[in-house]
Amino acid sequence: MSDVSHALYGDLFGDADVSAQFSSSAALQAMLDVESALAETQAALGIVPAAAAAAIARVSRAEQYDVAALAREAAIEGNVVIPLVRSVRRAAAAQYPDAESWVHFGITSQDVVDTALVLQLRAAVPLIVRRLESLAADARGLAHAHARTLMSGRTWLRQAAPTTFGLIAAGWTEALDRVADGLRQALERAAVVQLGGATGSLASLGGQGKLLVERVGARLGLGVPNLSWHAHRDRIAALACAHGVVCGTLGKIARDIALLGQDELGELDHMSGGGSSAMPQKRNPVGCAVALAAATRAPGLVAAMLAAMPQELERGLGGWHAEWETMAVLVSITGGAARACGEAIASIDVRPERMLENVASSRGAILAEALTLGLTSRMGREQSHAAVARACVRSRIERRPVGDVLLEDPEVTRHSIARDDVDRWMDPAQYVSAAETLVSAVLSAGRPSDVRD
Amino acid sequence: MSDVSHALYGDLFGDADVSAQFSSSAALQAMLDVESALAETQAALGIVPAAAAAAIARVSRAEQYDVAALAREAAIEGNVVIPLVRSVRRAAAAQYPDAESWVHFGITSQDVVDTALVLQLRAAVPLIVRRLESLAADARGLAHAHARTLMSGRTWLRQAAPTTFGLIAAGWTEALDRVADGLRQALERAAVVQLGGATGSLASLGGQGKLLVERVGARLGLGVPNLSWHAHRDRIAALACAHGVVCGTLGKIARDIALLGQDELGELDHMSGGGSSAMPQKRNPVGCAVALAAATRAPGLVAAMLAAMPQELERGLGGWHAEWETMAVLVSITGGAARACGEAIASIDVRPERMLENVASSRGAILAEALTLGLTSRMGREQSHAAVARACVRSRIERRPVGDVLLEDPEVTRHSIARDDVDRWMDPAQYVSAAETLVSAVLSAGRPSDVRD
Amino acid sequence: MSDVSHALYGDLFGDADVSAQFSSSAALQAMLDVESALAETQAALGIVPAAAAAAIARVSRAEQYDVAALAREAAIEGNVVIPLVRSVRRAAAAQYPDAESWVHFGITSQDVVDTALVLQLRAAVPLIVRRLESLAADARGLAHAHARTLMSGRTWLRQAAPTTFGLIAAGWTEALDRVADGLRQALERAAVVQLGGATGSLASLGGQGKLLVERVGARLGLGVPNLSWHAHRDRIAALACAHGVVCGTLGKIARDIALLGQDELGELDHMSGGGSSAMPQKRNPVGCAVALAAATRAPGLVAAMLAAMPQELERGLGGWHAEWETMAVLVSITGGAARACGEAIASIDVRPERMLENVASSRGAILAEALTLGLTSRMGREQSHAAVARACVRSRIERRPVGDVLLEDPEVTRHSIARDDVDRWMDPAQYVSAAETLVSAVLSAGRPSDVRD
Amino acid sequence: MSDVSHALYGDLFGDADVSAQFSSSAALQAMLDVESALAETQAALGIVPAAAAAAIARVSRAEQYDVAALAREAAIEGNVVIPLVRSVRRAAAAQYPDAESWVHFGITSQDVVDTALVLQLRAAVPLIVRRLESLAADARGLAHAHARTLMSGRTWLRQAAPTTFGLIAAGWTEALDRVADGLRQALERAAVVQLGGATGSLASLGGQGKLLVERVGARLGLGVPNLSWHAHRDRIAALACAHGVVCGTLGKIARDIALLGQDELGELDHMSGGGSSAMPQKRNPVGCAVALAAATRAPGLVAAMLAAMPQELERGLGGWHAEWETMAVLVSITGGAARACGEAIASIDVRPERMLENVASSRGAILAEALTLGLTSRMGREQSHAAVARACVRSRIERRPVGDVLLEDPEVTRHSIARDDVDRWMDPAQYVSAAETLVSAVLSAGRPSDVRD
Repeated sequence: MSDVSHALYGDLFGDADVSAQFSSSAALQAMLDVESALAETQAALGIVPAAAAAAIARVSRAEQYDVAALAREAAIEGNVVIPLVRSVRRAAAAQYPDAESWVHFGITSQDVVDTALVLQLRAAVPLIVRRLESLAADARGLAHAHARTLMSGRTWLRQAAPTTFGLIAAGWTEALDRVADGLRQALERAAVVQLGGATGSLASLGGQGKLLVERVGARLGLGVPNLSWHAHRDRIAALACAHGVVCGTLGKIARDIALLGQDELGELDHMSGGGSSAMPQKRNPVGCAVALAAATRAPGLVAAMLAAMPQELERGLGGWHAEWETMAVLVSITGGAARACGEAIASIDVRPERMLENVASSRGAILAEALTLGLTSRMGREQSHAAVARACVRSRIERRPVGDVLLEDPEVTRHSIARDDVDRWMDPAQYVSAAETLVSAVLSAGRPSDVRD
Repeated sequence: MSDVSHALYGDLFGDADVSAQFSSSAALQAMLDVESALAETQAALGIVPAAAAAAIARVSRAEQYDVAALAREAAIEGNVVIPLVRSVRRAAAAQYPDAESWVHFGITSQDVVDTALVLQLRAAVPLIVRRLESLAADARGLAHAHARTLMSGRTWLRQAAPTTFGLIAAGWTEALDRVADGLRQALERAAVVQLGGATGSLASLGGQGKLLVERVGARLGLGVPNLSWHAHRDRIAALACAHGVVCGTLGKIARDIALLGQDELGELDHMSGGGSSAMPQKRNPVGCAVALAAATRAPGLVAAMLAAMPQELERGLGGWHAEWETMAVLVSITGGAARACGEAIASIDVRPERMLENVASSRGAILAEALTLGLTSRMGREQSHAAVARACVRSRIERRPVGDVLLEDPEVTRHSIARDDVDRWMDPAQYVSAAETLVSAVLSAGRPSDVRD
Repeated sequence: MSDVSHALYGDLFGDADVSAQFSSSAALQAMLDVESALAETQAALGIVPAAAAAAIARVSRAEQYDVAALAREAAIEGNVVIPLVRSVRRAAAAQYPDAESWVHFGITSQDVVDTALVLQLRAAVPLIVRRLESLAADARGLAHAHARTLMSGRTWLRQAAPTTFGLIAAGWTEALDRVADGLRQALERAAVVQLGGATGSLASLGGQGKLLVERVGARLGLGVPNLSWHAHRDRIAALACAHGVVCGTLGKIARDIALLGQDELGELDHMSGGGSSAMPQKRNPVGCAVALAAATRAPGLVAAMLAAMPQELERGLGGWHAEWETMAVLVSITGGAARACGEAIASIDVRPERMLENVASSRGAILAEALTLGLTSRMGREQSHAAVARACVRSRIERRPVGDVLLEDPEVTRHSIARDDVDRWMDPAQYVSAAETLVSAVLSAGRPSDVRD
Repeated sequence: MSDVSHALYGDLFGDADVSAQFSSSAALQAMLDVESALAETQAALGIVPAAAAAAIARVSRAEQYDVAALAREAAIEGNVVIPLVRSVRRAAAAQYPDAESWVHFGITSQDVVDTALVLQLRAAVPLIVRRLESLAADARGLAHAHARTLMSGRTWLRQAAPTTFGLIAAGWTEALDRVADGLRQALERAAVVQLGGATGSLASLGGQGKLLVERVGARLGLGVPNLSWHAHRDRIAALACAHGVVCGTLGKIARDIALLGQDELGELDHMSGGGSSAMPQKRNPVGCAVALAAATRAPGLVAAMLAAMPQELERGLGGWHAEWETMAVLVSITGGAARACGEAIASIDVRPERMLENVASSRGAILAEALTLGLTSRMGREQSHAAVARACVRSRIERRPVGDVLLEDPEVTRHSIARDDVDRWMDPAQYVSAAETLVSAVLSAGRPSDVRD
């Protein structure tokens, strides 16, 4: 089986540590860990001979098995556990003849596939959480450093009213904290063992089913559900969703960085970044592209996980199978997006002087809201709004400051509005001060007040 | 503007109570509630004259405004708040001339759109949670009544091993409890006020911004975030995801009911259900179809909410707008699916005798797992598995009981296996007993142990 | 049933003409048109009494029926045709007693729902095609007018190499031509009558089934398939896909316009556009937001149509139902995006002087590719590339022209490269000329050569 | 970089021949084919020295390059072409020193990535078309063999009215023909060369750009567009859509096969299929699960391709990157679904006797539509419908034939309806005959009349 381009793009779109949890050998190892934990627990409960369990444990190492051969057989039998168990039986029997009977005793393929997936997720997801925490810490640093760094706020991609770069970075910080927390919580809920046997009751184990599940869960460090979840995929789907939300937030931050880094804005520059095969002058925001690519792909992958949920009776026909590669890719690109966005943030070069230039380039129009509010106390809201709108149009056409133009408007001057008033109203200090207050609140909170533990 | 078929299908795919929270007039009322809470709070803080606030409150009733006219203006200005505020100003000024200046004072359209959406969600989502709780209660009742009702478990849509209908219903119960809980938690996190002014700092209100947000939040009964979330949509996206997970679980239950109700299975019947325009004998599982339709549509709606997340800088260009109808439809069809699935479960007619017939129809093959485990103690796993597989094939061809055929197999009989052994091993009692134990655990738990509060 | 916010936002996100085809009354009328065409055809074939058919035709007017009552009954029976047929029977019997027996004779609800949908699509989709053609004509006008208008091409959101605005507009033109053509073709394939009776064979009509389908198709102006397509949804899904592709292209054009219209770029301005509730100076690109919102929502709606395809046996359980509102919304927002993008293009104000300023602002770096290719003939590729990269970095730091800096580089000067060479290589004329050639090709093609008829 | 589980599941979810076109080495080779075709064409046009082109051609073999090293560098530079070109330059220079300057001359990375993707698609997609044609041929065989094989048609998963298995198979046949045709046409439109240089005008090549594109297109056997499509992704998105439609149709067929193969229906059996790790009696419909898994995943992948369309200006930031793995996976799983569904159809064992038993098990209720139409001529529609509905209910309760029960109903007997009438009306022959006529039409058409060439 070929690799469907992944070998070429895996480093670009993934994160090596996260993706390593979803390699073929990691997947096999997780399955073997389940089989071996089962046998050892069954031995402790007297269900399986200790020598058999020991033999099974000894042959539960992924590198002993032939991935290509297993893959070929999986294509016929519908999952990889069936041929894997066959191989483990052979290997265990070579160690201890009777062991053959006690491999995978009393359980079904789905128990192994699902619990192994949970083990992989429990290894991978905390790595992403850690990357997000580190990203949040970097964003927090920017928020602190630039709490008073004046810049244009932009809505609908147009200059709107002043803000500070620190307030933007504080927004990133809090969002990263929240989505990291969401991911952590969703993992905690999903990190439960699956062990139900053929149809969920572990009847094959007589009265010992429930106890076995508890002990296997404890051995693997996983939670123990009341019931096997072979046909109810809500926990895993919710975890997929949490990844989708993470990708969306990373995409938002990446888009902000890329937009502020456009040559004509020039407010952020990237110290790293890719070159071009044709253009020597280019430094491309590769990290932003990777995060935005993940934000573009993740919604469809989440949709597939949700679409897979209505699985038929005691085992899904196709829905279950749809999860396997989807979940692995989703977690991998989320890890990649976190890594890439982290590189982008870490290499940001903030350009306060360009921020000021851009604020100035509006000739005061960016302060139209403040100006209107100031005028309102003298002229009423309707007249103020109209006067400022007129002044903005004329300022644009004549390329003169809004304040100057405004002070020539007889509708304004007859309310004895003076240059000093206008200058005071158009002082961006109020925006800087309001932003700084909010940034302080975020920074002092440590973590945002609305993340619950 | 036409209604895009909704008037015809709204009752089928929606829930009247839930959808009512998303009608045009409910949407307008929520926006007016925000404006009026703002003005009253500002009056209390001395920002706005009390008489103006009172006038604003008096004109904050949706029925006073012309939806069609607002919609036409919204098409030009990009959202409905701009024309609505204009209308409210006119109306308030008619009550108290100065009020015109104090409507929507210091805030921006997005503050109103977003906080109003949150108010609508806070009204609608608990209705869905309540429907899910009622559904879970009905499922719990089925679990209790049928804890020992033997039936075929089916994997890959084929008979696999016995289970009980109570165990299936217990699985529904726990899943419903979990997804209701997930919905409730996501709402709690999303139910925060949005109030940031032009670019998120509420600078227009001088130093009183933070205090104002707290007071407006308190007045509206909403949480208060550290920062305005105008450009960070994670909370609302996560709430959308929780709806997607609910729809997936409802679709799973609906699919189970529909599959078990097929004529040839006949294990569940529907006492209600739709007729056919051509076939007088038909009773169609309409409730199941509605839940499955929601489970088919929700993933794409969730994907749209996630795809909308990377919004540009201080206000999204298209991303924000994509949320409005998407979220309203998603919540509505989730409500509809809960209602419809509830009707389906409430009208279930369980047919234990058909369940038994279907178990019997396998001529024992459904007990192949149990038989194999029994034989293993005498013949080893490999031989047992092969002997049972042979017996199943012959049983199918000859249409004779698996046990009879097995006892004619010399490979089996030479291990002195007797009819009694076979009968004991093939007694489904063990499955019933294991299932009953699990059902009891669920019933006694009240709510599943892995739902955290 | 409430309207789920659509009344507020329908004008913003839709197109009145397109959406009108999906109103409740248009949907009902389409169903009645099917019933009436059926009866009249059956009368012509001698299956139904002529007087009955005449009575049915007389009562086939949507305004005669109570939408709210039909909706309530549809919620119980699973589709609106069942109660509608009941009402039509009553109404027809009032005209001619025997007519009651001949309404909906021999067919099933799905025949009516599906054929009616096709009638609605055949009315709506050509309106969108026409809007796209008009958009393409406007884009063609821009391509013609600005074939030689020099501007910065931008890749990864950074200045890359020169292009002309005409070449960008030519790209829009061709893409619009292609997607309009794709939509037209998909409609042509999907515009086939559905008439199969209970399970697709029209057996209820004895040997006359096939003939009836042909005649009804002819009467309604629809194509006639070999088989009823009640359970094979590929044609309708492919038409949904074509809408998705249209939205993607409109979103691309809208994003281009919005990006080029940012204040700091200022290369395009919008003569129309929405204001702000807080900021008097704002002119927001509302049309772009609407198109981008559609491009954000359409992928999920297309996904729902595709996810609905695996419908069970002779009629889908949920999959079929998922199509109804999804398709109506998808077509409506595609129409809205075409309208809004059309408004955006029609109101574009091209600013060639800002384009030149932005080209100049790179101090020559935007011509790095051209400069490198020129130098290569003298210095070899590797040295050229390195020299130009060095010059770009120094130019940025020292804020001096790339050409000046380059001519101070001893690695360059020792190859006797002169100011004249550099000026020639850095002349953007070559880019303008290449762009103009391509634009001419597009303009002279009328329609792009690769659109097949 | 790890393989993200693909090595384990690639054989199950993919098709070896199709996936081979998307391996890392196939991807690299396609890129090298583009570089080499470019150099050779440029040599023929006198742009590049012949010896350099020859050297480039000699080093254009994928196995000469280190995938892992390229992947690492791609992660920094944003695509694999940049490091690949660097490696090719080194390798070509080793053959012929001057060659270094002429590798990748005048073009940009995206030209190579996109044209290479088209080459891979042109290799892979026809393999899928061929698989679909073969599948259609098998379905056609079933339609022919079973044109008169009576079975239950089922709507809403309930028995509805008789049909024949041949008619179902004819429906599959036509759908397969249509979606294969759609795929072929979408490929034809998408199979165009991409060659535009930095910003689409190939200005770097002076006046020879257009000619070069034509010649490279001819050399690679690809179509030649009027304009470079670097930022307009409609052709590739439409091709993705065509894959989505194929997966939907394969999922529909797979679902039909799986449903008809349920033990209690038993109308189709699978001669192949997977076993179970726990249950020796199981033969699982693995092929159906694979096709349904693809139908579950494809909608989200198509959604990602559509969501990626609004790419920024002259090169997308993230949108373009989102396409790479998405398209490769989508095509691969479509190939896998076609292979798996083909295996399922090829191994179908039709059970006409079970079909008859299931028809009979309704005790005549399945003929309710026919019976009603028969009675209508005597009793009027309303009374007939009511009488048959009554008879069906009583038949179900009393477990007696509908016809017998009906003939005891005084409302019926007073219209002198005789046993003979009832038997004639309830004869399924009419359904068989109608179905056979339709099947003949499909079979004689060769290909369905509504597939246009």
